[in-house]
Amino acid sequence: MKEIAYIDGAFIDLKEYAVQLEDRGYQFGDGICETLRVYDGKCFAVKRHLERYRRSMREMEIPITDTDPELYNLFNEMIEKSGIEDGLIYFQLTRGTAPRALAFPEPSLPHLNVILKDTLVHADWQEKGIRAAVVEDIRWLRCDINTLNLLGSVLAADQARKAGAQAAIFCRKDGDVVTEGHNANFFLVKDGVLWTHPADNLILSGVTRALIKDKLAPALNLTVVEKKFSPDFIMKAEEAFLANTEDEIVPVVAVGRDPVGDGQPGETTRKLLEAYHELVKAGVDMDEEE
Amino acid sequence: MKEIAYIDGAFIDLKEYAVQLEDRGYQFGDGICETLRVYDGKCFAVKRHLERYRRSMREMEIPITDTDPELYNLFNEMIEKSGIEDGLIYFQLTRGTAPRALAFPEPSLPHLNVILKDTLVHADWQEKGIRAAVVEDIRWLRCDINTLNLLGSVLAADQARKAGAQAAIFCRKDGDVVTEGHNANFFLVKDGVLWTHPADNLILSGVTRALIKDKLAPALNLTVVEKKFSPDFIMKAEEAFLANTEDEIVPVVAVGRDPVGDGQPGETTRKLLEAYHELVKAGVDMDEEE
Repeated sequence: MKEIAYIDGAFIDLKEYAVQLEDRGYQFGDGICETLRVYDGKCFAVKRHLERYRRSMREMEIPITDTDPELYNLFNEMIEKSGIEDGLIYFQLTRGTAPRALAFPEPSLPHLNVILKDTLVHADWQEKGIRAAVVEDIRWLRCDINTLNLLGSVLAADQARKAGAQAAIFCRKDGDVVTEGHNANFFLVKDGVLWTHPADNLILSGVTRALIKDKLAPALNLTVVEKKFSPDFIMKAEEAFLANTEDEIVPVVAVGRDPVGDGQPGETTRKLLEAYHELVKAGVDMDEEE
Repeated sequence: MKEIAYIDGAFIDLKEYAVQLEDRGYQFGDGICETLRVYDGKCFAVKRHLERYRRSMREMEIPITDTDPELYNLFNEMIEKSGIEDGLIYFQLTRGTAPRALAFPEPSLPHLNVILKDTLVHADWQEKGIRAAVVEDIRWLRCDINTLNLLGSVLAADQARKAGAQAAIFCRKDGDVVTEGHNANFFLVKDGVLWTHPADNLILSGVTRALIKDKLAPALNLTVVEKKFSPDFIMKAEEAFLANTEDEIVPVVAVGRDPVGDGQPGETTRKLLEAYHELVKAGVDMDEEE
């Protein structure tokens, strides 16, 4: 089980020097990224991740230099080479290297890099739940694009940690609206209904979020409401959880000093997590039908 | 006259591979930067740039690993080595290299890199002025920190270029307020008074802006008003200009399809530019008194 890295056509050691100072990713965060899970030696929900990746590229006007099948084959080659059965594939595309100037360089040859690693395990989060801290959402207004401009999330994650919490939950001052977690979508369970922020420009439209909405909630007869709500509303909910690719579904049992519901992981969250694990076992792959 | 680059204690070729994939600058834009001018073989206003750099470090909680005199000596060594008399020093500090996770890694050893180059010359901008385009300001709410999260400016610069303009002028939808240019502070001249956005969290407090306020305007008996104004207000002004380190002071003679004032570089802007060139000749160096 060995981590493995790739950039622009070559496999490298992750600690190799592989990037130039004038890579626009390094000077401007001018690029996009995706993270997907490998379970049992197979990519999970890779079609959905590639679709979001293409959308990010379109929104950022980064030209296409790799096809979906090429990327998919590369991921599988890396899984084989590394011997990793359960891991995380992180891939990132920057606009290219050019003398420092803000406007897009022309022509621009994007750099693709891919890292495959073991999963960072937060062993007891799913079972015991985590504490979250509400942090002001000061990020830019295109959080729907999965870019490398992640300082808002970096600062929020650290602020949460300093407050003794494992995750930050963003709140926009403008409108007093809870948007999402610092690296996950945020859900509430209230009167048996799932609440989450609409997939607009203020949040990343998560793949796990979409799987919950499209597959798990219908199977469990749960209604999903995509609507804005304030931090106060969290305290009226029975349950809360975060959903992302890496950590799957994680119960939020406290926000700040206040317990959510009875302060224990909720029943609905537990059912969703079980259903998610079933889905993982069944696999959601490149041939997934919409 | 040769460009020269430096990272973490060593001089390198600018095209060398010098950065690892997991440098937080590359994955999150987790770092800060500064640009300063070299005129006649000497750093200009370096003390002010280093002060802003330190402030950015404090706000981002990046630990100090180089002192001001060390940096100043490094810049001068690079000037000597390169033989560049008139150029641009770009320096950038990232939080370090660590396995990808949003919260700050501990411990964290920052990476400093410095690039010295000839100045990109926009020969006729100062003389003839430029056209600007108003672009929605969608950036995060800490534009006062000189970070590497520059996608808002990257997209705006490109949007302006596509509109046939040489610069973008940001307008916050929230409040209909003009904040600054995509890489420069924005000024108006109205009834002989200089208007510019207050140095709050929505703009970068520019060194050229400060030199105008602290030195040039007083010397020319001009009043500076730091107050918010809307895009409509630009059309009521006699003159407009952008101010930054690289391009100094550049008249804005049109915004979108509308001329500013009589559509020619203004008298006050011209006087400020002359005074700026005098200041450059006199030099503003490390020993500058506040």
